[in-house]
Amino acid sequence: MSDLVDRLVQGLPEDAVVVDPDVTAAYARDMAGFCAAGAPAVLVFPRDVEQVRHVLRTATALRVPVVPQGARTGLSGGANAVDGCIVLSLVKMDQILEIDPVDRLAVVEPGVVNAVLSRAAGEYGLAYPPDPSSWESCTIGGNIATGAGGLCCVKYGVTGEYVLGLDVVLADGRLLRTGRRTAKGVAGYDLTRLLVGSEGTLGVVVQATLALRPEPAPPLVLAAEFAGTDAACAAVCEVMARGFTPSLMELMDATTVRAVNEMAAMGLPASTQALLLVAFDGPAQEAELAAVAEICRTAGATEVVPAEDRAESDLLLQARRLALPALDRLGTTMIDDVAVPRSRLAQMLRGVAEIAERGGLTIGVVSHAGDGNTHPVVVFDATDPQETARAEQSFEEIMALGLELGGTVTGEHGIGLLKRDWLARELGPVGLAVQRQIKSVFDPLGIMNPGKTL
Amino acid sequence: MSDLVDRLVQGLPEDAVVVDPDVTAAYARDMAGFCAAGAPAVLVFPRDVEQVRHVLRTATALRVPVVPQGARTGLSGGANAVDGCIVLSLVKMDQILEIDPVDRLAVVEPGVVNAVLSRAAGEYGLAYPPDPSSWESCTIGGNIATGAGGLCCVKYGVTGEYVLGLDVVLADGRLLRTGRRTAKGVAGYDLTRLLVGSEGTLGVVVQATLALRPEPAPPLVLAAEFAGTDAACAAVCEVMARGFTPSLMELMDATTVRAVNEMAAMGLPASTQALLLVAFDGPAQEAELAAVAEICRTAGATEVVPAEDRAESDLLLQARRLALPALDRLGTTMIDDVAVPRSRLAQMLRGVAEIAERGGLTIGVVSHAGDGNTHPVVVFDATDPQETARAEQSFEEIMALGLELGGTVTGEHGIGLLKRDWLARELGPVGLAVQRQIKSVFDPLGIMNPGKTL
Repeated sequence: MSDLVDRLVQGLPEDAVVVDPDVTAAYARDMAGFCAAGAPAVLVFPRDVEQVRHVLRTATALRVPVVPQGARTGLSGGANAVDGCIVLSLVKMDQILEIDPVDRLAVVEPGVVNAVLSRAAGEYGLAYPPDPSSWESCTIGGNIATGAGGLCCVKYGVTGEYVLGLDVVLADGRLLRTGRRTAKGVAGYDLTRLLVGSEGTLGVVVQATLALRPEPAPPLVLAAEFAGTDAACAAVCEVMARGFTPSLMELMDATTVRAVNEMAAMGLPASTQALLLVAFDGPAQEAELAAVAEICRTAGATEVVPAEDRAESDLLLQARRLALPALDRLGTTMIDDVAVPRSRLAQMLRGVAEIAERGGLTIGVVSHAGDGNTHPVVVFDATDPQETARAEQSFEEIMALGLELGGTVTGEHGIGLLKRDWLARELGPVGLAVQRQIKSVFDPLGIMNPGKTL
Repeated sequence: MSDLVDRLVQGLPEDAVVVDPDVTAAYARDMAGFCAAGAPAVLVFPRDVEQVRHVLRTATALRVPVVPQGARTGLSGGANAVDGCIVLSLVKMDQILEIDPVDRLAVVEPGVVNAVLSRAAGEYGLAYPPDPSSWESCTIGGNIATGAGGLCCVKYGVTGEYVLGLDVVLADGRLLRTGRRTAKGVAGYDLTRLLVGSEGTLGVVVQATLALRPEPAPPLVLAAEFAGTDAACAAVCEVMARGFTPSLMELMDATTVRAVNEMAAMGLPASTQALLLVAFDGPAQEAELAAVAEICRTAGATEVVPAEDRAESDLLLQARRLALPALDRLGTTMIDDVAVPRSRLAQMLRGVAEIAERGGLTIGVVSHAGDGNTHPVVVFDATDPQETARAEQSFEEIMALGLELGGTVTGEHGIGLLKRDWLARELGPVGLAVQRQIKSVFDPLGIMNPGKTL
């Protein structure tokens, strides 16, 4: 241990190496529940690429595991420490190195906070679309590690679609440059996309070249109430089948709407069984919203309320952003992240309701409905071991249901520790074997974030 | 050799195994110039996944190289035979298995022709955007192998962005399923994107799940003439910097415009030095076109002609689609495919003009200007060895220039045989080493399309 620290300080500023167990313990985990975390040996805060290379070379020399971390807002335990590891926090590498409005790209260090980049891009009339709920605190490096999504994905896609190139320090300290600065490029195997979503198991992202888009118009939002999730999902399917591309299409179930109302008087309709929010941000947004209003009525909406103006639109979006904090107030929560083909969304929601009933638990469901990406939030009393066991059981049943419906066990949160067994089920034996061999190419000693993903 | 054929016919219909050297020789190469091609031992036309698995198992058992092929419209020699290989043509696996308008996806076999899929999707009001010049004959499998682009990429991106999941037969005959049917999904390493653009060196795509988009409005096109490429490129940069997203932004130089005029009386302005075509296909297309017209005038356009109607727009696009055939009439041609950051496009075009002058050659340049993706077409007399050598030299100089300007040696055509040495230069030693190790994971015996890409 002291050999480890001695070596680390040879290539890092003294204040960048922390061994105080009270401090290191505070960096032992991300925001996932149900996940174990070990005790780090040391916590390091490198400030440049060479320092990261030094950390990785040291780790390789001493065969010490390395757990890279951003803001630890992850929801799968992907940033949780393992015993005796180096926790490698990238939060001090937080510079935006370049924003180019002609090439429409940004070059950033991994510790840049998502919202900071979004605002900086906004000064050029540009946007960085991926907008996870934690966008005010999560880092770009963490977004890349998990392949993070958000509310915008139905139109704009997830993080991977915005990563043009990466600088990555490999386990042995070599610096790998992938991708490009050009709009197009297909030279060689796409290592950039291989690294996005790899959760720190293949290397450490130390710089990213990101595609930006023109900033869209502020969204106009419509709220539609339904007597049940089936009718709401029918509206979702009809909107997509009719060729609309909303910039947001979110569905909250009755449990979630009630929780939001209890937390803040946002004016959500208290009696609704399913509340669908649909937004458009293109030049035809008013006509599109009117057409979607009609589709919702035909699908059986009991009430359709297009926002009168930007302020009302903002209020509706704010209500949606409160969904998870509001559910958190009901007890200990465990958020799931199962995506199914959107044509199966109604079945998925029905199935989750049955699982909740069977387990005698509250499960509120917030869905990125346009993507078929559901976030069932299992609420339980963590002081009650039996209820906790039932919650874990329900969580597993939700993933099994997702796979059964042709879905994936993670739409945007990643695998981490939480869903490792489920990833194996989703990939099947051939996929798992190939993925493990790829891991070995990058990390032959198995020191990069061990135990995560695979 | 006869052992090979004996084994192949045990798992393939008799008429699916061809040994006639006149026939096999006809399948020895794609459309790339400057590339060697060997003599195949046998040509096979499997009709289903099991037959492909049989071919690969046989190849592994006998250590015979396998060269997968689509329609052989590739431009990098990626489908060229090597001596004694099995040419594995996928053209008979040409079924569209499913189109789902709610989930907005298609499931297809690899031999489906791009235009056939596009038209089938059109019947549902959907589009499959990637549109390489060869779209009437090239196959989806070939598009996936090369990561093909087209005219639409400035707005819609290349093939990779539309591939949700793949079924791939590995060298040893195992079937690997990657990806998903859901709009979102980040479970495990992104093997789907790793396989897109891998040019048959990692496995054989036998089924693809593709994302579709709502069919856009027919494009409205504007033509702007400039006194030189610098001014035209300034207009391109300004259009992008001002936040417009055209559905097409193509630049033809004087050589190309003259060639098109000589081939067909399409009414292109004969005296122009640089002709920019810009199209929009969204709901605000008329206003956007008017704004771009103004930008072009400010940038120094000598003439700006917005198409009056769809018919005129179609004619302009047709003229653009004639650019390559028109240049082909001037002599033997060698088409390059270098993408640079769009802010560097003017420098690239100036450099190519200098290379043409230095080599005493005609080089017409067609550019997907919005992407910074140039296609310099080197015209030469193939019966003149000295001129051929100068053409090869110019071709190399163009790639060197592209890399110098921060670009990539292939925007959309792939590496194949043609650019193998250049890929190594672009990747650098660490990137090349990692890519080679990944190749070994998939193909430890080195039988999958050997000599291509890496």
